[in-house]
Amino acid sequence: MGKVSSADQTIAAVGEFGLIDRVTEQIGSSEYVLLGPGDDAAHVATADGTFVVSTDILVEGRHFRRDWSSAADVGHKAAAANLSDINAMGGVATALTMAFAAPADLPEQWALEMVAAFEAECATVGAHLVGGDVSSADQVVISVTAFGDAERPVTRAGAQLGDVVAYAGTLGLSAAGYAALSRGFRSPKVAVDAHRRPVPPYAAGPAAAAAGATAMIDVSDGFVADLGHLARASKVAVDVRSEAFVLPEAVETLASALGGLDPLSFVLGGGEDFALVATFPSASSLPEGWTVVGEVREGAGEVTVDGEPYAGTPGHRHFA
Amino acid sequence: MGKVSSADQTIAAVGEFGLIDRVTEQIGSSEYVLLGPGDDAAHVATADGTFVVSTDILVEGRHFRRDWSSAADVGHKAAAANLSDINAMGGVATALTMAFAAPADLPEQWALEMVAAFEAECATVGAHLVGGDVSSADQVVISVTAFGDAERPVTRAGAQLGDVVAYAGTLGLSAAGYAALSRGFRSPKVAVDAHRRPVPPYAAGPAAAAAGATAMIDVSDGFVADLGHLARASKVAVDVRSEAFVLPEAVETLASALGGLDPLSFVLGGGEDFALVATFPSASSLPEGWTVVGEVREGAGEVTVDGEPYAGTPGHRHFA
Repeated sequence: MGKVSSADQTIAAVGEFGLIDRVTEQIGSSEYVLLGPGDDAAHVATADGTFVVSTDILVEGRHFRRDWSSAADVGHKAAAANLSDINAMGGVATALTMAFAAPADLPEQWALEMVAAFEAECATVGAHLVGGDVSSADQVVISVTAFGDAERPVTRAGAQLGDVVAYAGTLGLSAAGYAALSRGFRSPKVAVDAHRRPVPPYAAGPAAAAAGATAMIDVSDGFVADLGHLARASKVAVDVRSEAFVLPEAVETLASALGGLDPLSFVLGGGEDFALVATFPSASSLPEGWTVVGEVREGAGEVTVDGEPYAGTPGHRHFA
Repeated sequence: MGKVSSADQTIAAVGEFGLIDRVTEQIGSSEYVLLGPGDDAAHVATADGTFVVSTDILVEGRHFRRDWSSAADVGHKAAAANLSDINAMGGVATALTMAFAAPADLPEQWALEMVAAFEAECATVGAHLVGGDVSSADQVVISVTAFGDAERPVTRAGAQLGDVVAYAGTLGLSAAGYAALSRGFRSPKVAVDAHRRPVPPYAAGPAAAAAGATAMIDVSDGFVADLGHLARASKVAVDVRSEAFVLPEAVETLASALGGLDPLSFVLGGGEDFALVATFPSASSLPEGWTVVGEVREGAGEVTVDGEPYAGTPGHRHFA
């Protein structure tokens, strides 16, 4: 467009095609990307002739707030949420597309920083943006689709009686960070950081698949809620032991600071840390980073904690 | 959710998971869909170990209006826009994902009718929804990603000096329909219908690839604008002859009714009919449905009409 970029230039000033050009300059590639951004479609290779695919939409005011999270935080989280779904199939992401809608007065810098952080997070697993679309809208909306290879996709539906239940990654930190931010706090820093920039255990999904995991899901709505999805899909019940969970110190600190809340409610009710929960045959040798917390029983989707129905909040729902 | 559906029930009343369940019931399958909706990711087969992928976002008030288009019209168009991108690579779509965001008071019926029409349009080429995501938002946002097989993906960048330029499908009807609706008219019906429910020439893309097309793009922004993308990517100039285009009768009627507008401005400036424009070696025998309108010359992205720069509107831009 021939205009000089400046820190406060809006996406309206740079224009749709200018924004796309500048975003595209930031994007890396790999042997999977046969044709990258810029054409009607990208062309992507697969390892075994098939691919796993998942999509997630992030909406300003619902999934993030621009006054709580930087553009880079939002880009990181948009990537993490999608890479986590591929991880939860036991797969490794190879490529992603992003559709981006925003008000015309959004600073161009916001969009560029968001995409740079998105691409950086994707690059940690070797994946890259291969295409996208841009539109104006009243709110910022980031819709991502992730593709990956999974040698043996692990669904939610394979849990067997007698399997152990285990998780990998962190539980409760993001929810604790959200609770802190909601009350105007900026600490505990580790919790606030986890809410802004979750760190999914990307190695744990493929490792679980290789170790014979029978069912797996990522924790995005909440541990009990998502384990409930797995239990219902597998037509089993699951019981977990509360003392088996690792309580992050920042969760205990925050729960105490908020007037003696139960720290376990963040671990069992909170989502968005993008931990994984999976079931394994009881004789399995679990991969590094996985912690056994329960077992699979006969039932129809029930999740109990120490043998009792869970009384806390079951997880996040939209339109609620 | 155990609730009785009624015509005026909102998506808030049925809930996120209720809406997903009801949408999923409408979805078909094929031999490409190894695992469909309902898990962390879908699992999709490819014909040759690779896939083409494209994404498009439709935003209420920008791409459609709920008072101009029915839910079914919007679903149809969301599918057509994405299937068209795969068509423009010379490919055939096999699977799609949809992320859907909407105000909580949106009638559930609107969402169900939109998805049903979307799936019906996809089924015309044998493709099906394999996954999605749902969120609340201030406006309706529909973000679609389409995957497909393309034996020989045809990019925008391969046009050669001396190639002929040809198009397939209809040009100008959607823009004429938009112009009619903008002025409060509901006719000419064929134009209004084309704006609400464009009919992309799905067979023409793979046929062009098989016939040796050197470059191809779909017309979504406007014929001259999109041909300009092709010319720039191919580092050539293109000249088209105005008398070679088929002027739809409804375009002539509408242009005349609006006070003697040039009907060619709808054909050359209008988008969203999802016609295809491609270049072919001049000795090619063009497939059925393709009309030669020009030729490739030496240049750097220029598009001329009858040897002159095009003076009309170059196509739609966001943030403009």
